[in-house]
Amino acid sequence: MNSNTFQDQKDQKLSYKFGSMQHVDKGVRQQAVDHNIEVIKYGQELGSTSLTVWLADGSSFPGQLNFRNAFNNTLESLQSVYDALPDDWKIFVEYKAFEPNFYSTTVGDWGQSLLYANKLGEKAYTLVDLGHHLPNANIEQIVALLLNEQKLGGFHFNDSKYGDDDLTVGSIKPYQLFLIFKELVEGMDARGLNHATDLGWMIDASHNIKDPLEDLLQSVEAIKLAYAQALLVNSKALNDAQLNNDVAGAQEILQDAYRTDLRPVVAEARLRAGAALNPLGLYREQQIRQQLIGKRGEQTVATGL
Amino acid sequence: MNSNTFQDQKDQKLSYKFGSMQHVDKGVRQQAVDHNIEVIKYGQELGSTSLTVWLADGSSFPGQLNFRNAFNNTLESLQSVYDALPDDWKIFVEYKAFEPNFYSTTVGDWGQSLLYANKLGEKAYTLVDLGHHLPNANIEQIVALLLNEQKLGGFHFNDSKYGDDDLTVGSIKPYQLFLIFKELVEGMDARGLNHATDLGWMIDASHNIKDPLEDLLQSVEAIKLAYAQALLVNSKALNDAQLNNDVAGAQEILQDAYRTDLRPVVAEARLRAGAALNPLGLYREQQIRQQLIGKRGEQTVATGL
Amino acid sequence: MNSNTFQDQKDQKLSYKFGSMQHVDKGVRQQAVDHNIEVIKYGQELGSTSLTVWLADGSSFPGQLNFRNAFNNTLESLQSVYDALPDDWKIFVEYKAFEPNFYSTTVGDWGQSLLYANKLGEKAYTLVDLGHHLPNANIEQIVALLLNEQKLGGFHFNDSKYGDDDLTVGSIKPYQLFLIFKELVEGMDARGLNHATDLGWMIDASHNIKDPLEDLLQSVEAIKLAYAQALLVNSKALNDAQLNNDVAGAQEILQDAYRTDLRPVVAEARLRAGAALNPLGLYREQQIRQQLIGKRGEQTVATGL
Amino acid sequence: MNSNTFQDQKDQKLSYKFGSMQHVDKGVRQQAVDHNIEVIKYGQELGSTSLTVWLADGSSFPGQLNFRNAFNNTLESLQSVYDALPDDWKIFVEYKAFEPNFYSTTVGDWGQSLLYANKLGEKAYTLVDLGHHLPNANIEQIVALLLNEQKLGGFHFNDSKYGDDDLTVGSIKPYQLFLIFKELVEGMDARGLNHATDLGWMIDASHNIKDPLEDLLQSVEAIKLAYAQALLVNSKALNDAQLNNDVAGAQEILQDAYRTDLRPVVAEARLRAGAALNPLGLYREQQIRQQLIGKRGEQTVATGL
Repeated sequence: MNSNTFQDQKDQKLSYKFGSMQHVDKGVRQQAVDHNIEVIKYGQELGSTSLTVWLADGSSFPGQLNFRNAFNNTLESLQSVYDALPDDWKIFVEYKAFEPNFYSTTVGDWGQSLLYANKLGEKAYTLVDLGHHLPNANIEQIVALLLNEQKLGGFHFNDSKYGDDDLTVGSIKPYQLFLIFKELVEGMDARGLNHATDLGWMIDASHNIKDPLEDLLQSVEAIKLAYAQALLVNSKALNDAQLNNDVAGAQEILQDAYRTDLRPVVAEARLRAGAALNPLGLYREQQIRQQLIGKRGEQTVATGL
Repeated sequence: MNSNTFQDQKDQKLSYKFGSMQHVDKGVRQQAVDHNIEVIKYGQELGSTSLTVWLADGSSFPGQLNFRNAFNNTLESLQSVYDALPDDWKIFVEYKAFEPNFYSTTVGDWGQSLLYANKLGEKAYTLVDLGHHLPNANIEQIVALLLNEQKLGGFHFNDSKYGDDDLTVGSIKPYQLFLIFKELVEGMDARGLNHATDLGWMIDASHNIKDPLEDLLQSVEAIKLAYAQALLVNSKALNDAQLNNDVAGAQEILQDAYRTDLRPVVAEARLRAGAALNPLGLYREQQIRQQLIGKRGEQTVATGL
Repeated sequence: MNSNTFQDQKDQKLSYKFGSMQHVDKGVRQQAVDHNIEVIKYGQELGSTSLTVWLADGSSFPGQLNFRNAFNNTLESLQSVYDALPDDWKIFVEYKAFEPNFYSTTVGDWGQSLLYANKLGEKAYTLVDLGHHLPNANIEQIVALLLNEQKLGGFHFNDSKYGDDDLTVGSIKPYQLFLIFKELVEGMDARGLNHATDLGWMIDASHNIKDPLEDLLQSVEAIKLAYAQALLVNSKALNDAQLNNDVAGAQEILQDAYRTDLRPVVAEARLRAGAALNPLGLYREQQIRQQLIGKRGEQTVATGL
Repeated sequence: MNSNTFQDQKDQKLSYKFGSMQHVDKGVRQQAVDHNIEVIKYGQELGSTSLTVWLADGSSFPGQLNFRNAFNNTLESLQSVYDALPDDWKIFVEYKAFEPNFYSTTVGDWGQSLLYANKLGEKAYTLVDLGHHLPNANIEQIVALLLNEQKLGGFHFNDSKYGDDDLTVGSIKPYQLFLIFKELVEGMDARGLNHATDLGWMIDASHNIKDPLEDLLQSVEAIKLAYAQALLVNSKALNDAQLNNDVAGAQEILQDAYRTDLRPVVAEARLRAGAALNPLGLYREQQIRQQLIGKRGEQTVATGL
């Protein structure tokens, strides 16, 4: 389940204009806590076992808030939610460098998120959204360190050039995506984690100039390719190269995997799982979008895109 | 005392080309540890009570190192240094986003530094160098959070536009400097810390196109002004504005302090302390640079600058 | 007059989803041209003598458009608008690095804008919006170069930390604002331009967490202070320092002007012009916001903020 | 031939500490002009037909120089060099955003470079170094626009994450490299240019933690792969997708080419040209580095790396 006080504002009485869990007013903080606890309840009915908390909390002007109070209020609020978390649930604390606030964000980077997660307890984890970093951040290193700390909770996949652009996964920096998956495979294996189930995998990409389903199909393909390439890395040889500080050799090993065309492998895997060899091609050939609009059109007016 | 394996390389047998405390070779790591312990001994003779560790460790190409091993090796090395730290000493773990390594840095941001400091123990702190961040980082928030965690150790002051430019303090972003001092004053007061002695204050700025002493005089003046402006902030009124979410009002309070010309106050304080009213003016009028070059010239050949 | 096909979409038949003046469809381009010509007509009725063109045109994914065709189509469209421009009008070509498109913008930086302006002719100029640059851009240098080329048309003032944040002028980087005004004063004087009338001065800042009028009052005050400080720079002494490569001295001259508290001067000027000494104070004391909401309320429902 | 007053300082009498072609002192400017003219003469003897001018000129502190004078001085100096250029030569004006100067660079971006090139004349062109941009710049668009203006002179290939890192080509952002080659192929074809000879192709990458020859071999391979992938793009289908604003389709076409493993094609081409199938493998197997060090060692002391 996702909790997002920023987007969920409309159903709530007190305004989140100046934050939710960080708010100077205890009443607003309590409302945000109650909202999260309610989300957990809905989640339980739906069979979910995790709560992702992304807070728009922060400030747009120097002086607007007291950083320490904002942090401590947020921690207290999160603690209240954490206390209401079912035993088998996890809570993911998502961070974001900027936007919608333009001066500070109260969970602004992985360091802050990890601080909250460590203070909350063992059910609390950090969630990484690829588009939520300052320019030039080394995201794959963050992923590796969070796995090393056993505090990586999950992912929001997308791609971006400037900020939280939410572009199709793999459309801008596919090599970075591969490097992230390399860390995921390596780090999860080192911890004995199950690739499929021990992290929360989410796609958070969507741009209004593409059909959202085509966007999703392209994102899934990019993720599968990056994952397959990461599995292909000769980790024994890479480890040897690293132990010998053979920098050029280590690069060769990574690029060997990345440059291999694994589209046939991914397609075959899809076929064996009973799915289409070429999802985007099928989607277009079968005019599925038109069919879906047609069906929805029986009850509602389609909005176009 | 400052320990810097990157710059101190020349006196040591094994190469730090592939790192020091992170190195895959236990021998190199031990050499770096021994070097730091030696630095502590010199420091004790000189009456110092702190060790600043800045590591150039990192990588310039994907695959060059294993992030988790690099982190764990560095932690182990730091732990050995920490164990040799005298009881009344502090160790400052400095971070830097990039350079001289251009892909990853093993103590790359405040989050990593704090992780090390927390694992090491209560004598370990984070050191903030203003030029060591990714573009657009909110440094004043980092300062506030580290003070909140009781883990801010000290500062390297300088200014920059692009990276670790080491420009004169206050020459590019004087308002940011003021905001940082506002957090320092507020956060230290909240913790009952002594402004003068409870943090390590260092200037790490110097550019070859200025006389280094003039650079230093300008840096000191900028720091004193920012500190005086921070002390002038009406913290009671600011707190009220924050509690009322009066964003424009809070900005007015900060800018009132910042826009006040406190040069006369700083000059008077200097005069009362027996120093010059106008240090840079005096330095130029008295041709102190020429005098110093003259004196050094008796024994050595001055390099000019 | 401002023309903005992105925001003006609602009144037009063909969609600007894939651009306006860059569009692959001649019909859409023509619609955008016609819209601009219509805006000119309204402007003439209102006594305006300039047209500011900001285009959201660009792309969000590699391959989406052909950069050269997009440029050439845009140039052709702008030429058609230019041809319809009254003799005493200017056209300002605004640039923006990113957003709402997240891969490329067809008028993306000052270089592109100047290219269009030079190709269009002598009535075409570049417009600078402070928030429309890549991280760390030196905006004051751009201003100086555009003045040197006699192609600076005007300004959108605001402030920002990350992107096009549209924060109150002077709220984040007041020293940069001063440096920009220093270039404006110096460059306009060198060209014999009238400070008040020969450039288009606009404020384009507004954030929903401040009362928009208070935001505006703070922006105007910041602009007046920066302008007054720029006028105070001892340009003769600065020129001498530059000719002697006295870098520290040149910095002193700039900072002397910047550190002087010119609020009394600006307030006195306001008083002599028949305005309030302290506009924000008066606005709050007289509860002008409440009065305005009261008045509007007679005809319409106030939206709050 | 490359002219670089910054690196060539040692053989010249007057200091370039405060710039060369921008210098306030006419004598220094003349020295820089003379140096360039001398470089041309050496170039003629060597059979070269182009001069690349990269200037470290700029400033590190606000106020240090007058932007307009620096620009105009540089233009005048370049004009003198241009006037001495043989008829069949080109002059390439290289730009760089920052470093070694940390506040402004006098040829700081492609817009400035193009301004110089346009003012100089038809033998003057812009040179693009991949590492010389502000964060997040869209380099492929710059390449396309320069080709559109018939002013792209050549390339310095390398890769980088933060600044002018000079990493191995293709080691950080291989998809960006492919997109740049796609623009090169498309733009050169549109202008009827010869891929091999009508642009200046240079590799400017080298990092001390790799054997420089291995670095070079990896760079060449990355360039060949990107070029081959760019040639593989179905430009007819891409054009159709663009004309139909089929954004997802256009992305598929680009990624189809990029994801194809063209290493066998590039290797076969190398074999047919009489070169090694696997250059890096051969280089290591034959221990060519050791052989070269051995040979050089007969006359000189090898420096290690």
